[in-house]
Amino acid sequence: MFIVHVFVHVKEEFVEEFKALTIENAKESLLEPGVARFDIVQQHEDPTRFVLVEVYKTYEDPGKHKQTEHYTRWRDAVNHMMAEPRFSTKFYNVFPDEEGWV
Amino acid sequence: MFIVHVFVHVKEEFVEEFKALTIENAKESLLEPGVARFDIVQQHEDPTRFVLVEVYKTYEDPGKHKQTEHYTRWRDAVNHMMAEPRFSTKFYNVFPDEEGWV
Repeated sequence: MFIVHVFVHVKEEFVEEFKALTIENAKESLLEPGVARFDIVQQHEDPTRFVLVEVYKTYEDPGKHKQTEHYTRWRDAVNHMMAEPRFSTKFYNVFPDEEGWV
Repeated sequence: MFIVHVFVHVKEEFVEEFKALTIENAKESLLEPGVARFDIVQQHEDPTRFVLVEVYKTYEDPGKHKQTEHYTRWRDAVNHMMAEPRFSTKFYNVFPDEEGWV
């Protein structure tokens, strides 16, 4: 699996709107054949910070995700909500193996 | 869900041994009633860096995990492998809901 953790810091007034839009994007992303999981977690100590835990089946799948209509719609809709630019870290799965990400 | 991301930086010579011990700990942790997922991911750009993505059912379950024999065995076995102290960030799940973490 090719896993991307996207770190997001949202302006406080947009937290709930960001959550709703990102849940919608996660649900649509899970319909992509290359997406195994698309988790959204909110930081305990600072609820304006989120991590999107995106689990792709191959190295090529994040690029395909970024070409979808739902991704570009989400990206444009949340653009003004960012407190700072998003950044990401990329990983491989050590455990579980390929079967364990559904 | 109460989710903990544990950031681990391992000395280069211990990477494979750390992976083996941590996989063993993950498998045993999944048998705990309070543990829904216990994923291990390795950073793409720097394979000496890992994140343990620990998904607990309640706020109390990380404390119970730290009292298990497999956790203390793992903690002691990897202690000398750390390139720097571990640190963690705590989260709640936004998506999926409680049913989606198996």
